[in-house]
Amino acid sequence: MFYWLFYFLRDYDFPGSGLMGYITFRAGFSFAISMIIALVFGRSIITRLQKMQVGEVIRNLGLEGQMSKKGTPTMGGVIIILAILVPCLLFGNLSNIYMILMIVSTLWMGAIGFLDDYRKLKYHNKDGLKGKYKVTGQVGLGLLVGITMWLSPNIVMSENMEIESREGPDLVEIVHSGTMEKTPQTTIPFFKNNNFNYEWVTSWIDDPQAAQTLGWIVFVFVVIIAVTAVSNGANLTDGLDGLCAGTSAIIGVALAIMAYLGGNIIYAGYLNIMYIPGSEELVVYAGAFIGALVGFLWYNAFPAQVFMGDTGSLTLGGILAVFAILIRKELLIPVLCLTFFLEDVSVMIQVGYFKYTKRRYGEGRRVFKMTPLHHHFQKAGDPSIKSVLNYPAGPIPENKIVVRFWIVGILLAAITFVSLKIR
Amino acid sequence: MFYWLFYFLRDYDFPGSGLMGYITFRAGFSFAISMIIALVFGRSIITRLQKMQVGEVIRNLGLEGQMSKKGTPTMGGVIIILAILVPCLLFGNLSNIYMILMIVSTLWMGAIGFLDDYRKLKYHNKDGLKGKYKVTGQVGLGLLVGITMWLSPNIVMSENMEIESREGPDLVEIVHSGTMEKTPQTTIPFFKNNNFNYEWVTSWIDDPQAAQTLGWIVFVFVVIIAVTAVSNGANLTDGLDGLCAGTSAIIGVALAIMAYLGGNIIYAGYLNIMYIPGSEELVVYAGAFIGALVGFLWYNAFPAQVFMGDTGSLTLGGILAVFAILIRKELLIPVLCLTFFLEDVSVMIQVGYFKYTKRRYGEGRRVFKMTPLHHHFQKAGDPSIKSVLNYPAGPIPENKIVVRFWIVGILLAAITFVSLKIR
Repeated sequence: MFYWLFYFLRDYDFPGSGLMGYITFRAGFSFAISMIIALVFGRSIITRLQKMQVGEVIRNLGLEGQMSKKGTPTMGGVIIILAILVPCLLFGNLSNIYMILMIVSTLWMGAIGFLDDYRKLKYHNKDGLKGKYKVTGQVGLGLLVGITMWLSPNIVMSENMEIESREGPDLVEIVHSGTMEKTPQTTIPFFKNNNFNYEWVTSWIDDPQAAQTLGWIVFVFVVIIAVTAVSNGANLTDGLDGLCAGTSAIIGVALAIMAYLGGNIIYAGYLNIMYIPGSEELVVYAGAFIGALVGFLWYNAFPAQVFMGDTGSLTLGGILAVFAILIRKELLIPVLCLTFFLEDVSVMIQVGYFKYTKRRYGEGRRVFKMTPLHHHFQKAGDPSIKSVLNYPAGPIPENKIVVRFWIVGILLAAITFVSLKIR
Repeated sequence: MFYWLFYFLRDYDFPGSGLMGYITFRAGFSFAISMIIALVFGRSIITRLQKMQVGEVIRNLGLEGQMSKKGTPTMGGVIIILAILVPCLLFGNLSNIYMILMIVSTLWMGAIGFLDDYRKLKYHNKDGLKGKYKVTGQVGLGLLVGITMWLSPNIVMSENMEIESREGPDLVEIVHSGTMEKTPQTTIPFFKNNNFNYEWVTSWIDDPQAAQTLGWIVFVFVVIIAVTAVSNGANLTDGLDGLCAGTSAIIGVALAIMAYLGGNIIYAGYLNIMYIPGSEELVVYAGAFIGALVGFLWYNAFPAQVFMGDTGSLTLGGILAVFAILIRKELLIPVLCLTFFLEDVSVMIQVGYFKYTKRRYGEGRRVFKMTPLHHHFQKAGDPSIKSVLNYPAGPIPENKIVVRFWIVGILLAAITFVSLKIR
């Protein structure tokens, strides 16, 4: 709203109104405001959630300090969602297709997560929404986003900007030029210019029109998988204080940098990366997203005063997936969001191996001490900690695992950037 | 070294050798390698420090969980210093004046911190190096850096790049031009173009030559204050697990972004900020710096297996100050490093008020429950935590304070950027 207001005031040379035209300025503001919303309103929302007895039903898994979590309110995801949406509505350009898609995704996944948490609390069990409804919701969002990107005339990109420069002693002249195209193109390392077109998969079809359509269908399919996998991954990751919020914030920072560079014609040209006009607006959204999570960590960091619940985790995963898809970075997700995937995969391996050994040997065996993966580390311990630390002998302290997951997340983000070999 | 090797191989079109010319590629590598060094060698260094009985002498301050820290090895700063220097030597351009100054600063402050820690351990007391020697070392570094910047012909800048652009339907033509100057210029918000020249202070002098010289002297004076204040601030901040390392890493990220933008003629021109040729090399240093700290946090995060000691904290403060000075951002330090300063100031207020009230009323009174500031929060507690959290009733848990200091640090970095109002 402020964006439009200042846009209007600009015609009258209102002081400061020009600043709203700067993406970084709006993103910075949106970051600061969303953080402040999470900090200020977080406290009263937590008190209210607690009064409403919105406490997590804790299963006793025999983990260090775990039962002390009883009574900690859940559904703190509403704080995150609120802190994301308010700055976007204030500072975002609400006619931008990318901004619209992100706001819709936030509300969509937020609603599913909320329903899930609500059912858990109402019926006092750990089940919540049935798995098939969750997946339906995720697939639905994937379809919506994928098809919009296919059909919307506002979503185009330029594969690589032509850039020509002539340098003199203290003069540089640079010419950027590119043609806007509508293709299911994405970014992947080790390919020429890091570009990959989904139509390549269907290039064996003679009819170019049909090949293109099928290329888009492949793209939509990938979108659905990405949304479902990341959303469920984030959901499983949300098992230790601050784990999911911190990891998501780190991924958010990496995606924000990519959106900023790819949405600016000068940077995209200079770095020789895909230019996506309009996608720079996503930096404003990313600012709010990161701010909301950092602010939420004020209360959610170990020892947590509030949990995000599925309202938070399903939404965060959905947001990250859609964001990556919009800036055509969905094929980088397996590296960038590797911690989410390892949580996903650890559960699959554990369950699969248990069933297999049960059938084969009559008794179920386990690969991990416990899944999702973070609980494995909690139970497994770390000999170096045991010997050095007086603190809690034996298993790795919860906070230590969380910070180490964050560190791995930061390393993964660095690897993603280095793999793209941008200048 | 690899930088020169690949520079040499480039002439022979050796595959991949061109990548070493990209700052972000070298910075990304330097980040990843320094993190891996801290992770891999950290463990064995900690074991060795522990065997050498390099445990911190803990005074009983009556703080929650504090005595369990007894026996935790200190001097972990050597891990940080090692993890910074190795990637810089490998991937840095060692003929770049900015890189040289950073390496010298790291070694200089590292040596002072090491002496300090060594004396503490040898004589088994908390005193270490006398205050006046520490300050002499800090002032010496300030002098060295300030005077080098004054006299080195390689250190120049261009106040603002002229940028002219002509846009067509799918063509943008941009011309960057600027004149390189040697002036004691710096960045400060709310001034025209955010630029401030120290010669302004001496503009009442008629002789322009004398005014310029005096301007540089003012600059050197500011440099000395910055180095001393930040180094001591970081030293005081190092009192809770992960506090100093995390806060320094956050400041490092902010400075790295500024160095990257200001060291690139295209970005600097586009953003209308000061262009400092050669300073882009600092991004490689910053990569190593941030990587070293993040890696160190693997062991240093609550509950810590190792402390950085003065070897770490004095060095980190010195590094941050010199880095900010080199990219002409020293006047932003009071905001960007506010947490360090509050630690500084809280001690001054506490001691000053205690002495004043002792003289005046015969009994010393205190403003804070305890200083440096982070201990105040540890003792003061937070009513919202008390009511919500089952965990440790009463004072704020150590880890919570640490994460909250990090969050404040992130907010301060955002405020610094927004205040500069770059596009």
